[in-house]
Amino acid sequence: MPQPDHLISLDLAVPEQPADADIKRYFDKCMEKIGFVPNVIKGYAARPQRWRAFVTMYHALMDKEGSKLTPLEREMIAVVVSSVNRCYYCLVAHSQAVRKLSGDPELGEMLVMNYRVAELSPRRRAMLDFAWKLTETPSRIEEVDRDALRAAGFTEEEIWDIGETAAFYNFSNRMAVTTDMMPNREYHKLDR
Amino acid sequence: MPQPDHLISLDLAVPEQPADADIKRYFDKCMEKIGFVPNVIKGYAARPQRWRAFVTMYHALMDKEGSKLTPLEREMIAVVVSSVNRCYYCLVAHSQAVRKLSGDPELGEMLVMNYRVAELSPRRRAMLDFAWKLTETPSRIEEVDRDALRAAGFTEEEIWDIGETAAFYNFSNRMAVTTDMMPNREYHKLDR
Amino acid sequence: MPQPDHLISLDLAVPEQPADADIKRYFDKCMEKIGFVPNVIKGYAARPQRWRAFVTMYHALMDKEGSKLTPLEREMIAVVVSSVNRCYYCLVAHSQAVRKLSGDPELGEMLVMNYRVAELSPRRRAMLDFAWKLTETPSRIEEVDRDALRAAGFTEEEIWDIGETAAFYNFSNRMAVTTDMMPNREYHKLDR
Amino acid sequence: MPQPDHLISLDLAVPEQPADADIKRYFDKCMEKIGFVPNVIKGYAARPQRWRAFVTMYHALMDKEGSKLTPLEREMIAVVVSSVNRCYYCLVAHSQAVRKLSGDPELGEMLVMNYRVAELSPRRRAMLDFAWKLTETPSRIEEVDRDALRAAGFTEEEIWDIGETAAFYNFSNRMAVTTDMMPNREYHKLDR
Amino acid sequence: MPQPDHLISLDLAVPEQPADADIKRYFDKCMEKIGFVPNVIKGYAARPQRWRAFVTMYHALMDKEGSKLTPLEREMIAVVVSSVNRCYYCLVAHSQAVRKLSGDPELGEMLVMNYRVAELSPRRRAMLDFAWKLTETPSRIEEVDRDALRAAGFTEEEIWDIGETAAFYNFSNRMAVTTDMMPNREYHKLDR
Amino acid sequence: MPQPDHLISLDLAVPEQPADADIKRYFDKCMEKIGFVPNVIKGYAARPQRWRAFVTMYHALMDKEGSKLTPLEREMIAVVVSSVNRCYYCLVAHSQAVRKLSGDPELGEMLVMNYRVAELSPRRRAMLDFAWKLTETPSRIEEVDRDALRAAGFTEEEIWDIGETAAFYNFSNRMAVTTDMMPNREYHKLDR
Repeated sequence: MPQPDHLISLDLAVPEQPADADIKRYFDKCMEKIGFVPNVIKGYAARPQRWRAFVTMYHALMDKEGSKLTPLEREMIAVVVSSVNRCYYCLVAHSQAVRKLSGDPELGEMLVMNYRVAELSPRRRAMLDFAWKLTETPSRIEEVDRDALRAAGFTEEEIWDIGETAAFYNFSNRMAVTTDMMPNREYHKLDR
Repeated sequence: MPQPDHLISLDLAVPEQPADADIKRYFDKCMEKIGFVPNVIKGYAARPQRWRAFVTMYHALMDKEGSKLTPLEREMIAVVVSSVNRCYYCLVAHSQAVRKLSGDPELGEMLVMNYRVAELSPRRRAMLDFAWKLTETPSRIEEVDRDALRAAGFTEEEIWDIGETAAFYNFSNRMAVTTDMMPNREYHKLDR
Repeated sequence: MPQPDHLISLDLAVPEQPADADIKRYFDKCMEKIGFVPNVIKGYAARPQRWRAFVTMYHALMDKEGSKLTPLEREMIAVVVSSVNRCYYCLVAHSQAVRKLSGDPELGEMLVMNYRVAELSPRRRAMLDFAWKLTETPSRIEEVDRDALRAAGFTEEEIWDIGETAAFYNFSNRMAVTTDMMPNREYHKLDR
Repeated sequence: MPQPDHLISLDLAVPEQPADADIKRYFDKCMEKIGFVPNVIKGYAARPQRWRAFVTMYHALMDKEGSKLTPLEREMIAVVVSSVNRCYYCLVAHSQAVRKLSGDPELGEMLVMNYRVAELSPRRRAMLDFAWKLTETPSRIEEVDRDALRAAGFTEEEIWDIGETAAFYNFSNRMAVTTDMMPNREYHKLDR
Repeated sequence: MPQPDHLISLDLAVPEQPADADIKRYFDKCMEKIGFVPNVIKGYAARPQRWRAFVTMYHALMDKEGSKLTPLEREMIAVVVSSVNRCYYCLVAHSQAVRKLSGDPELGEMLVMNYRVAELSPRRRAMLDFAWKLTETPSRIEEVDRDALRAAGFTEEEIWDIGETAAFYNFSNRMAVTTDMMPNREYHKLDR
Repeated sequence: MPQPDHLISLDLAVPEQPADADIKRYFDKCMEKIGFVPNVIKGYAARPQRWRAFVTMYHALMDKEGSKLTPLEREMIAVVVSSVNRCYYCLVAHSQAVRKLSGDPELGEMLVMNYRVAELSPRRRAMLDFAWKLTETPSRIEEVDRDALRAAGFTEEEIWDIGETAAFYNFSNRMAVTTDMMPNREYHKLDR
């Protein structure tokens, strides 16, 4: 029962070496920094123009100076959103990031499985409650939900960041699901 | 009972005249082409770097050459996704686009209210069924769902486009919901 | 992609000129007052005895002296119930009534799409919250829900009226759905 | 832990002897025929005009010549709709009717608890599947659901009857829930 | 339309007279005490080793000294759990137990149909609210739910008992469903 | 943000060294065989009589000769049931068992996150589909679901085993949830 080794199951060419120079450079930088090219980066390269838009948005949200949330908080949101949506790719990739950034492998598992069992600061619990609800029942979000974030100490800009980060993983979950994208095997063993 | 006239309800500065030249230019072009600046364009300008990422992704998907789907099909997906999520902003703005592009005001209403009552070609019905399911229960999408699109005549690239368009409106619905964004009043009267 | 022009999709005779004098008189009065016969009135005439019962109940609830709620409030309930049930016929017909009675076309759209974005008095918000819950999860209604209406200033008789109005549109939504009834095209352009 | 003995929990006058002659006559006929006045008949008399509409619709659907469905079939629909909605009043009253009309007390219990365990003819199973779906997810009903009834041998008129009967109990369930109506204790012991 | 008379619908031998002495003895004791062998006891005997485990757990929870809850409370939990799961076998068998232990036939019906209409002490309402939620959405149970039980006067051990009793009927409901087990006809007439 | 180190959050004595000889022996055997005592074994020892019933049932189902399913198949069911219920304890403990028994760490992750992405034999897919549905919507299980297992090659006895194994983890998930039980930290690093 060996598990799937396709990158995506849509029948589209995903080149090992991309023709476009900017994409190629990005692949090289991935190899240099983490030793592999994340499959979402490879898979998206089947559509170079879309790749650029996706990578731009990813960095606008996830780069150090991108948002007011800490890098760990952004990854926590990514995992909790992906847990609602049960997205295999994003759960594997972003729970590894949580394990690495927090130094707490159990936290990564908890956010995948049920974030409600984790011992979190009230701030982080409020953040994840908002991300969960925005994902599961966006039509029920009202001022009272924004107020709960304010009460937990978040600024208006940070509320935007929580919402946009959760929104972005609602996007990427659905891309992974549409294309049946498989995560790199490397993630599984890291930071356990 | 006058309805809300805020742009967004987060307390963030949304300048009438943006400081950044590229954003300013974009506003001007909107005025020129449609006579108003869509509120999502204004609201997002509270965060210039994010504005750029959002606008980039929007055009990558929605510009004429952006995807293999027709402009009407993309807007149909936008409305159906927003109907699942009951997103007021996106339903108002994109149902107007459906009315305009189709010349069929009833079609716009049907997609807002319940796309299952519309008389659609099998191709379009399959496309909207996929968009609905990908929005409502992404974890249940499997090869059989991609195969239904193939059977309706869609290529692999078009399946990607359907999925990415639906994913994008799952993103933008959640941004509108997070910020409590109100659509421009102009939309309501257009193309009725 | 012209939209359906059937009145109902059940294969039953729906006469342009009804044989029964009372039904004929009612049709004539509709023509006189609003210039067309609402399709539910035509469609129901396929079953004259049922037509009488339906029309009797409709007037008992919706006539001026019928209930303690204002005519606009009754139509607001109709739209919100139909929004839960995504009933095309009732959403089209009753959102027009909301637009007309309120003089606020946006309010009509908000109640169709997501009543939670509308700026409502606490009284009306409580009324619509009750109608939504009674429609979606009737088994969860308890004394606390009636008490919320009392706290918003409703009398016992008005609580009955809210409940019966919501109950009636839960009935008529399901008749429109069973017969696949299409609303008159006239509604779409009115009071925009 | 004696159970509630109120008729309805709304604080409205429900007279033992109604002032209106037609209502009084109806009460007398109930006493004569079944030995008690059903609580829905008493409770509704708090609003005489509404009582008349309700009773008219009830008889239009449930009287012998009212519909093409057998009396037992109509009661089966009543119980299954009320099972989805978990309506205590209607489950108690109409499961007694099923026990009486079928001579099969277990059938009554099965329809209350889970109609899927009952051994039903394909015709009746199709009828109850439609009633369940129309109650639980009316927005998902499509031509394919009407076709399933046709395939089970139902005429167009009977499809209307199934739908209207189910719609009516969706109405009456919500009236019982709004008013917190308690069924007559007599039902519990009958036809066991 | 006679109802099913199979014991279970899996094609497994369920002997009238079990070969194993301990099981035989148990059957005999049932005959002696209640005049019939409950079908779950017969049906489970198709798998003697499993029968022993099931009977052991049943008695550990349901015997007089087994738990701190009163026998009636345990049966109330059994019925409410089975109501969420709509399990015919367990609803029939345990609602009879509630009727018998409470001397209140209506209470048995209420717990089957919708426990929220019953007049319960705050303690019992809290107990059933926990059992319902633990059954329907176990992932949402948190400290606040245990605290609600504490506030209603339950000890830590009793909270365990409520949870384990509810958990056990979540087990037995699914066994009845898997095997399509039918309850003994005797239950229907008892304690009405 | 160190994660919780309680065993259970109910305030009950969970002795490091149990007083009862049989429980003590079991602890010793655990230490000998796997180097630690699983927390469910420790936690349950707060209630010795219940511990015995739980352990008896666990072994009746999970011991080598206990069921016709392979040990890996039983653990796969445990993980998929716990995934529906999002039970942290059982997901951590039983996904480790899947990793160990299958030698396929990715399979363990897939069953936790979304078993639908795994490449499974039709037999195992059918088994897990049944376990999922029996957990999520037991009231919808019918003969057609048992027939799907038969078509996948399962015997009547194996269908029982699939159902009882799934039922047992529906039990143990709810015990872990009721007591807020934390899994041993050892599981996290094993068999990655």
